[in-house]
Amino acid sequence: MANYPEKVYLNGEIINAKDAKISVFDRGFLFGDGVYEVMLQINEHFFFGKEHLARLKEGLYKINIEFDVHSLPPIITKLLECANLAGRDCMLYIQVTRGVAPRKHAFPKDVKPSVVLYAIPFILPSINTNNVSAITHTDFRWHRCDIKMTSLLGNVMANNNAVKNGHYETIFHRDGLITEASHCNIFFVKDDIVYTHPADQNILNGITRQIVLQLCQDHKIAYKEEAIALENINQMDEAFLTGTSTQIASIQQIDDHRFYSNNMIPKTTQLLQELFRELKGNYVS
Amino acid sequence: MANYPEKVYLNGEIINAKDAKISVFDRGFLFGDGVYEVMLQINEHFFFGKEHLARLKEGLYKINIEFDVHSLPPIITKLLECANLAGRDCMLYIQVTRGVAPRKHAFPKDVKPSVVLYAIPFILPSINTNNVSAITHTDFRWHRCDIKMTSLLGNVMANNNAVKNGHYETIFHRDGLITEASHCNIFFVKDDIVYTHPADQNILNGITRQIVLQLCQDHKIAYKEEAIALENINQMDEAFLTGTSTQIASIQQIDDHRFYSNNMIPKTTQLLQELFRELKGNYVS
Repeated sequence: MANYPEKVYLNGEIINAKDAKISVFDRGFLFGDGVYEVMLQINEHFFFGKEHLARLKEGLYKINIEFDVHSLPPIITKLLECANLAGRDCMLYIQVTRGVAPRKHAFPKDVKPSVVLYAIPFILPSINTNNVSAITHTDFRWHRCDIKMTSLLGNVMANNNAVKNGHYETIFHRDGLITEASHCNIFFVKDDIVYTHPADQNILNGITRQIVLQLCQDHKIAYKEEAIALENINQMDEAFLTGTSTQIASIQQIDDHRFYSNNMIPKTTQLLQELFRELKGNYVS
Repeated sequence: MANYPEKVYLNGEIINAKDAKISVFDRGFLFGDGVYEVMLQINEHFFFGKEHLARLKEGLYKINIEFDVHSLPPIITKLLECANLAGRDCMLYIQVTRGVAPRKHAFPKDVKPSVVLYAIPFILPSINTNNVSAITHTDFRWHRCDIKMTSLLGNVMANNNAVKNGHYETIFHRDGLITEASHCNIFFVKDDIVYTHPADQNILNGITRQIVLQLCQDHKIAYKEEAIALENINQMDEAFLTGTSTQIASIQQIDDHRFYSNNMIPKTTQLLQELFRELKGNYVS
């Protein structure tokens, strides 16, 4: 169940969440003109926090918002103190929009970006032991899914369609190839080789996705950054989702195809889950 | 030059624009999860106001937001009075989002939509006499462009790219076919036949687009709802853009192809501009 945080950082101030209000002329509200990031504090460290901030920086650059992400770490420290979350396991949300200006499509000049951060207590299970089911849908989102932007209506509609029917995710396919899910990346395993879509403009290059590929490399698990065709899903041995809060979630079923039964998470998925758990335990930022 | 309005209607209250603030947990801000509409009051009537509200209703239905657009007319009347715009030529902006809830992709339950309206003085020229230039770009937006939603980053980026280079618009093409522009529909004329992309999920079915097709029908101007190929642009006789504030704008140049010079707006575009002007003069809501 999602909750409101106690405190919100908004443009220089840390205030109670109910007082955190932005102008209706903020381009984040009028145009979905912003980027965001979600990261987790685990054992007093932000897990791959530098990588999350680097991706935020990259997203800001891609959509031409001038904002220095190096200003964020001291803000985060202060926010966590105010929210009584210093050193505690929590989820941090960061959103930067182009700022407040009279409504007009083209970027306004000399506008200060709006910056919102909040954190909520969040305890990650050591391993995601769920066996999730997913449905598939044409990837009807835009063609710059590499940008972690807040114009998310397509993702929201797809996710809602899954959730309301009792599934965890909607898996997208574009031109017959599986891309990713509405808020996760997706991997397949076939004949002991791990497959995932290459990190191009069709997917968000998830931090957990990158970690999993690194784990494969470090532990000599063969992998290919190649997209799997929708029609070949039922020939795959395993499938799993990755995401910051999802970690590694084994997929038991996609549409009508059942990968396994009786919660028997298949071997490569299970191995990666174990390796990911170890990595978290040993993580030093 | 875009300006701020004096007054804003926000969730039941009419307040000064600088006080019009929404929660950072509004899904309009977090997810671009809303729809909007822009319409013009001309000679004391909202020009095709019913059609604009009908489209808003349709958009709300498509993204499953429950909100009764019939509640809007009395709000609009009151807003215009408070803004000293009753009976005056102005532009009205309406935005409805899914409302305020803790951040989670899937739609929250039992949440009240957020409603924002504002109006600014706006005098439409009787005819748009500009000769505009445009550039082309792959249509990298989502595949539900029939929904007038606020997840507009793609449109914003494309429009900005045109404007910063001195052009009026970016014209999109998908799979080799011209779809529409970042905030306008586009028409071509070839051998006295008017062409525009059919009203499917690739374009927004603009109210002005519909008016132009009706004018063609009423005045026996041949037209076809057929998409023109990007590679055939230079074989077209005329091209024009349509939109609520754009009205009918003659396109002088697309990329390197010049349709005409010396402001000599071609005959069919000019005829439709005249017919549109007459329609406005005779319009009764």
